[in-house]
Amino acid sequence: MHIQVDRPATLLKPLFVPQKLLMGPGPSNCPPRVLHAMSLPVLGHLHPECCSIMDEVKAGIQYAFQTKNALTLAVSTSGHGGMEASMSNLIESGNTVLIAVHGIWGQRAANMAQRYGADVRTINIPAGEYFCMKAIEAGLSQHRPVLFFITQGESSTGVHQPIEQLGLLCHKYNCLLVVDAVASLGGVPVYMDEWEIDVLYTGSQKVLGAPPGLAPISFSPRAIAKIESRTIPVPVFYWDMKILGDYWACFGKPRVYHHTIPVSLLYGLREALAIFVEEGINKCIARHQMCAKRLHNGLEKLGLEFFVEKEEARLPTVTTIKVPRGLDWRVIQKYAMKTYCLEISGGLGPTVGKVIRIGLMGYNATLEKVDLTLKVLQEALLHARRPHTNL
Amino acid sequence: MHIQVDRPATLLKPLFVPQKLLMGPGPSNCPPRVLHAMSLPVLGHLHPECCSIMDEVKAGIQYAFQTKNALTLAVSTSGHGGMEASMSNLIESGNTVLIAVHGIWGQRAANMAQRYGADVRTINIPAGEYFCMKAIEAGLSQHRPVLFFITQGESSTGVHQPIEQLGLLCHKYNCLLVVDAVASLGGVPVYMDEWEIDVLYTGSQKVLGAPPGLAPISFSPRAIAKIESRTIPVPVFYWDMKILGDYWACFGKPRVYHHTIPVSLLYGLREALAIFVEEGINKCIARHQMCAKRLHNGLEKLGLEFFVEKEEARLPTVTTIKVPRGLDWRVIQKYAMKTYCLEISGGLGPTVGKVIRIGLMGYNATLEKVDLTLKVLQEALLHARRPHTNL
Repeated sequence: MHIQVDRPATLLKPLFVPQKLLMGPGPSNCPPRVLHAMSLPVLGHLHPECCSIMDEVKAGIQYAFQTKNALTLAVSTSGHGGMEASMSNLIESGNTVLIAVHGIWGQRAANMAQRYGADVRTINIPAGEYFCMKAIEAGLSQHRPVLFFITQGESSTGVHQPIEQLGLLCHKYNCLLVVDAVASLGGVPVYMDEWEIDVLYTGSQKVLGAPPGLAPISFSPRAIAKIESRTIPVPVFYWDMKILGDYWACFGKPRVYHHTIPVSLLYGLREALAIFVEEGINKCIARHQMCAKRLHNGLEKLGLEFFVEKEEARLPTVTTIKVPRGLDWRVIQKYAMKTYCLEISGGLGPTVGKVIRIGLMGYNATLEKVDLTLKVLQEALLHARRPHTNL
Repeated sequence: MHIQVDRPATLLKPLFVPQKLLMGPGPSNCPPRVLHAMSLPVLGHLHPECCSIMDEVKAGIQYAFQTKNALTLAVSTSGHGGMEASMSNLIESGNTVLIAVHGIWGQRAANMAQRYGADVRTINIPAGEYFCMKAIEAGLSQHRPVLFFITQGESSTGVHQPIEQLGLLCHKYNCLLVVDAVASLGGVPVYMDEWEIDVLYTGSQKVLGAPPGLAPISFSPRAIAKIESRTIPVPVFYWDMKILGDYWACFGKPRVYHHTIPVSLLYGLREALAIFVEEGINKCIARHQMCAKRLHNGLEKLGLEFFVEKEEARLPTVTTIKVPRGLDWRVIQKYAMKTYCLEISGGLGPTVGKVIRIGLMGYNATLEKVDLTLKVLQEALLHARRPHTNL
């Protein structure tokens, strides 16, 4: 009588996970050392060995972000949760916030800020461009926001937004600076303390090369002061940095239980950070830039056009090229996947149907993989140009 | 000049993860098949193979919950996030909600509901007891809430709360029933559809035996109607079931990108559900009850006293015993860990310092592990009773 739902037959078959080469905008492939770590035995969320790994991950994030911020940790969530954690901790209902919208991530941040009751103002430019300081200062001066949000690596458009002067500018207007570096960290420079960034977050599954599921994040003393000054609690327990910070031993107090950390993902991120630390930030950035240069040269030789016109604004980690006139991007994507198990992606948000996106991230940012991707793309374009090619 | 934070030396050493036997209230040990799956290559969050695995996981959760609900999925979060997702989707600011507080989980749910602007009322009983129908009906009748929250397996007290009549009762009062089955699902019966539960969630890391990081959850048509009737959006994008449900293809529409799913955890949960399905619900519950009986008999033979007085209210998955007079629970716990790498736990929330908690979950619910735990506990008690025993 009780059993009304039968055993699903699909679960009686073996799990099927193919090996692919992920040359899209992320997730990227994980190094074998990272994948191996994921299969290690589970530890309790307050076991001393787990806490040591949390400390190591924290130190690795501080290095990757170039910050001495005490409130530095990995939130148990995707990159989206990094954005949520920034918004929910810093916004109180009625606060004015300014969002730079130059792709999907600004739109998403505006959506989240609205849900938290903010008075959301935006500055906007067309997809493929970046904001100049003047436009940002005009926005800050006009709207007087408590928080300014901007994406450094706009993975939907392939734009690398300059941010090094923004902290100083925001602080002149008594405004906190939140930077989304999900798709850029490790591929371009980000110096959190030197550039006076108040909240910086990234994803585990991009340049760092860990599986998705953790969002490294850090809050400056200014950002902490804003959290401390709140008159109502952070609306979401799961994102509450005061408690989560205590779980990560960021405030010098004994650790408290906040949630059960996904410890396997922590192992993976720990190993990914160890690899990152062994290589060093500058070498890692140089490698991404060298690979991007080779890729960009190769794309030009194939007669392809960049979506981002200004060369200096092209993100090394995510390259966007215009879909050649008369071709269907889905045919190109499908050919690469079917024939080579190689992922290249279409557009996202404002670039859907308009671009092909090629990612160069972490373990996949090597000259060999660039050359392979160019070869596959060349074949895929030939295939797509043939008459009567079907999806 | 830019590099101001040096490479952390701790990350240049190898990762250290010891093998432990987790006989606490969770996480429990994962079967080798689950751990192996965690190390499989990462897939993109919208790759067809990933979507197939999501479908398999959904079917497995529907079976485990005994529900035909379309809106059934795993939220990318710990069990805490399952609680958050229930609260944030069903509560609109100003709604009256009733929370049954008989341990830490009711307290936590009340805390979350308050953050979402609910008018929170509680019914309370001492730790170690369970609510009778009369008390619950009195609460519903007095407070007329839109939502009633109760924990089936109170892991902080070891109480198994009867819930089979609650759906009918709540619906009589036009109230939705939310059940936390994080520590109970698979160890005691839960029949979501038959018992008219409106939201049911659990954790991946308890009886199911996957690593922590995913929270299986399901919403009834009544719960969906409440979500559909909202006048303001769900305050948290990450928990928004209308978008997340589309990502999981719950509403018959094309999948949309909501966040990057922690695909490695999905592999682990898929394999854990496959093992659960192969064994079957009834056999799994019977195994947990058989092991709990053996454990309880053994504990009595050791002269230990149960924290939960009524025998029928003792949770098979988490057993709480009173710390014997004059002994320090930390000495007992430490002895077991140091000498046998075996975890037994202290109390949590209202039971801190008062109880020792022994978990029997999933892969660890075997007669052999029960006997080993009893043997280790006996030794640990002897050790703790010796004079001059230090922590």
